[in-house]
Amino acid sequence: MMRIAIFGTGLLGTSVGLALRAAGFKGSIVGWNRSRGQAETALAMGAIDSIGADAIATAKASQVVLLAVPIFATLDLMEQLALVLGPEHLLTDVGSTKAQITESAGRLFNTPDRAAFLPGHPMAGKERGGANLGDANLFRGAVWLFTDNPLWERSPQSADLAKIWREWVIGMGARTIDLGPQRHDELVAWVSHLPQFTATALSALLESEVGDAPELKHVGGRALREMTRLGASPWSVWRDIAHTNTDAIAAALQALEQSLAHIRENLRTPELRDEFEKANRFRRE
Amino acid sequence: MMRIAIFGTGLLGTSVGLALRAAGFKGSIVGWNRSRGQAETALAMGAIDSIGADAIATAKASQVVLLAVPIFATLDLMEQLALVLGPEHLLTDVGSTKAQITESAGRLFNTPDRAAFLPGHPMAGKERGGANLGDANLFRGAVWLFTDNPLWERSPQSADLAKIWREWVIGMGARTIDLGPQRHDELVAWVSHLPQFTATALSALLESEVGDAPELKHVGGRALREMTRLGASPWSVWRDIAHTNTDAIAAALQALEQSLAHIRENLRTPELRDEFEKANRFRRE
Repeated sequence: MMRIAIFGTGLLGTSVGLALRAAGFKGSIVGWNRSRGQAETALAMGAIDSIGADAIATAKASQVVLLAVPIFATLDLMEQLALVLGPEHLLTDVGSTKAQITESAGRLFNTPDRAAFLPGHPMAGKERGGANLGDANLFRGAVWLFTDNPLWERSPQSADLAKIWREWVIGMGARTIDLGPQRHDELVAWVSHLPQFTATALSALLESEVGDAPELKHVGGRALREMTRLGASPWSVWRDIAHTNTDAIAAALQALEQSLAHIRENLRTPELRDEFEKANRFRRE
Repeated sequence: MMRIAIFGTGLLGTSVGLALRAAGFKGSIVGWNRSRGQAETALAMGAIDSIGADAIATAKASQVVLLAVPIFATLDLMEQLALVLGPEHLLTDVGSTKAQITESAGRLFNTPDRAAFLPGHPMAGKERGGANLGDANLFRGAVWLFTDNPLWERSPQSADLAKIWREWVIGMGARTIDLGPQRHDELVAWVSHLPQFTATALSALLESEVGDAPELKHVGGRALREMTRLGASPWSVWRDIAHTNTDAIAAALQALEQSLAHIRENLRTPELRDEFEKANRFRRE
């Protein structure tokens, strides 16, 4: 019977706990969180069985440690835990950028005498965080990306744990895809980070333009609501993403600026049709 | 008992017919459509009772004529119908830009010896058109804008019809707001046209970047689906909008380009927090 520690009982950590239980996980789940309030909420919701008082002791007492905290906190915990965990442990994470985390995983873990680290990234979330929004179905139908390295040499124990963790991810309803960390960060810059920063830019702009006339926001209807939903996303999460995937995000943003300028310059020319047709194709396939 | 003609039995026209029936409208509803197939679908769905063969004769035989066709077609029909309808008729429309239509309404209609024209714009729709997507609840909770002119002098008959039409709009579940046509076009440039062209630009860009790897689109999840849903919108509708609200749309697009560039240049500075906080405020109010 396995013991899993969830570090960070916010939206993702709490959802993993609930999803594991829903998938039939019978082992123990201990939660650790920097602020105790979120851990207590996760406990009350049944996402965890107990709250770990000390991070190091909690990790040591578990076979699998899931880091579900922002990226810089993940990198900090990796440094700390590498010193105290051994080849009988697996660490994994949910961070939205993978180049730095995977680099640290290769440097600090994944030799036969150390703990294993399996870098992961579930493509699921909500525009607001918090344990109280935890959802056992959050990962159902979602893609869970891994940026594992086939050259890493793990202890048989931790290699088994990595296999078992992948099975639980599928049990939670997700589909797993493996890709390299650089390719991961480029891809998510397009399909995840660009949509987020676009929604932020659009929402911030509209706050300046129509924010003083709140009744006019309702005029926009569903289209406006959808296009600005991610405007509610917290800076605290996206700061770390912006810092650890800066070049790819900047390239994607610049490409969108050019795409918007192209439309702006062609509002009355047949080029507009070409842009609509290209957009239609993206939605058709 | 009133007779209503719906010109254009696409998504909006068909939805109005269904919504009128759902709201208890007992009069007759006759549909007219350039291509007969859409009218037959609307008839089969119960959105209209009969199909008018001739546009002019259909309009003449009705008290209220709803124009639910693209903007340039609306402007053409206004020219044709002004010659044959009299003060016992009301025309109204659903066009997404209102400056040109309201100007034509003042020039061609709205004197005591002519038909009245009440310019309208329901803020509701779907990313795909067609009678088969017609929905009796499409206008429930939506805003229906009017750009009426208090200086217009209507016949008592057509003035009554305008009041009755407003009541049916509320009966369909919408909330009406009156504003001037210039203000309307500026406002919808921000809250409706900008979100649409942003989704088109984003979808077209992603088609170029990841369109050759369709499995990767699923990686994006709900955020990507929402931010590109409007990418499916048809050029045939948006061409007329782009042509009749060019300056306001261009100004909004340019402002968004600048907002994106500002974020791009500040991915690692505290300015990023300010943008997220402004965006958060837009969603909070």
